[in-house]
Amino acid sequence: MDTLKLALWQCPYAPGTAEALARLDATAARARAQGAALLVGPEMSLTGYQIGAAGVAALAEPADGPLAQAVAALARRHGIAIVYGYPERHAEGRKPYNATQCIAADGQRVANYRKTHLFGDIDRAQFSPGDAAPAVFAWNGWQLGLLVCYDIEFPEPARGLALQGADAILVPTANMIAFDEVQRVLLPARALENRVFVAYANACGQEGHTTYGGLSTVCGAMGAVLAQGGRDEELLLASLSRSDLLTARQSSQVNDRRPNLYGPLSC
Amino acid sequence: MDTLKLALWQCPYAPGTAEALARLDATAARARAQGAALLVGPEMSLTGYQIGAAGVAALAEPADGPLAQAVAALARRHGIAIVYGYPERHAEGRKPYNATQCIAADGQRVANYRKTHLFGDIDRAQFSPGDAAPAVFAWNGWQLGLLVCYDIEFPEPARGLALQGADAILVPTANMIAFDEVQRVLLPARALENRVFVAYANACGQEGHTTYGGLSTVCGAMGAVLAQGGRDEELLLASLSRSDLLTARQSSQVNDRRPNLYGPLSC
Repeated sequence: MDTLKLALWQCPYAPGTAEALARLDATAARARAQGAALLVGPEMSLTGYQIGAAGVAALAEPADGPLAQAVAALARRHGIAIVYGYPERHAEGRKPYNATQCIAADGQRVANYRKTHLFGDIDRAQFSPGDAAPAVFAWNGWQLGLLVCYDIEFPEPARGLALQGADAILVPTANMIAFDEVQRVLLPARALENRVFVAYANACGQEGHTTYGGLSTVCGAMGAVLAQGGRDEELLLASLSRSDLLTARQSSQVNDRRPNLYGPLSC
Repeated sequence: MDTLKLALWQCPYAPGTAEALARLDATAARARAQGAALLVGPEMSLTGYQIGAAGVAALAEPADGPLAQAVAALARRHGIAIVYGYPERHAEGRKPYNATQCIAADGQRVANYRKTHLFGDIDRAQFSPGDAAPAVFAWNGWQLGLLVCYDIEFPEPARGLALQGADAILVPTANMIAFDEVQRVLLPARALENRVFVAYANACGQEGHTTYGGLSTVCGAMGAVLAQGGRDEELLLASLSRSDLLTARQSSQVNDRRPNLYGPLSC
């Protein structure tokens, strides 16, 4: 595809997975009707994010579990790829991972990523950290990477994806309203410094005492904001142009890096 | 010092080092009169930047050479530390380094750094790349780091300085008017992601066919723009508050890094 039409599902958390799946069903239909080939939802899209360690443990499932199967059915029904967040069961019985999965329009699971940078007590009380660096995967001729929320605030994970050839980095997130500087300051920089698209799908509304800030954002590979949501529920559409990406890459700095001087970053 | 009063000397290149030193003399006096303790000039402050390989070779000197001695005399006379850029002679006779030096108010040389990321044909035709990662140095109770121009566009060098405990990163630069996204997008991100001050002293005006963009910028450690110049010659003052820095660091993310996952960044 020369253009990737992307939809970001900025939404409040639903009061349960059944309701969340029903909303995803309607949203996937709407996104497809508007021409989107890929729909990205927020962190822990279908379960809620601050559901407590017991809630996470109760809803945790393997990557091919019931939520994955339900999402795959929606993907097939609407003919759209879906990136969603979920609690992934830990093989050794420890706290689940804060995971994000991409399911293609044919229902195949094409990538799964476990959040590597846990945010504060909220994440640590609920999740185990992922122990694998994010890996680029191929989808419809595009090289994609997944990160989750806090991961994108660090330059290193996005850089790692860029070095693997990522065209776009998709970031389900649950960023609170106090931290708008992520969208305002960091996302354009991640895009520009790596010459990649960055798509950040945030929650909005209330969850317990927490208010999520919305402002879901798609950045072009020169750091321009291509689309940005407001504070409320919204289906955000953006067209990622491969020719824009190739143009941006003509001025890429990646080949001017001095990796032999960067050893202390991985110590 | 609880507050570092910093001056950035945004200026066009002078038609020769004698004239440049005379202007620096007047500028240092003015900066000191306004309370600044540290004055930062642009890349290759006293010689011009695009002076050609022969020009660079002719003006190159050791770190304690005649320009250094002249700057030391000005620093002592006005009681102000000075960061300036100059072509540093290569010990093995190769092309000079694009270097930046900090000379304290007592005339002592306290840090020297050789640009590690060379920018395009302009840099490569004139300079050898530095082969040492930037190192933090102590000055008046502050931990400072030096970078030059293009270096700051990469997340890695600033990150390396932050991991060494830098409070502020000082960046003499010669950024062209077509590349305003460095000031607009990248500087606030470098500051925020590392919880450091970033001070970027740009040239302005014409040099040959090149127009420099000014917009010299000081960012606070949460990414806010504390001071920013316009397009023309300007002495820009900013006060860096240690208590603001300590407040910003309370939310620092550096301890949440996963360095064991970052190995590919240094390969």
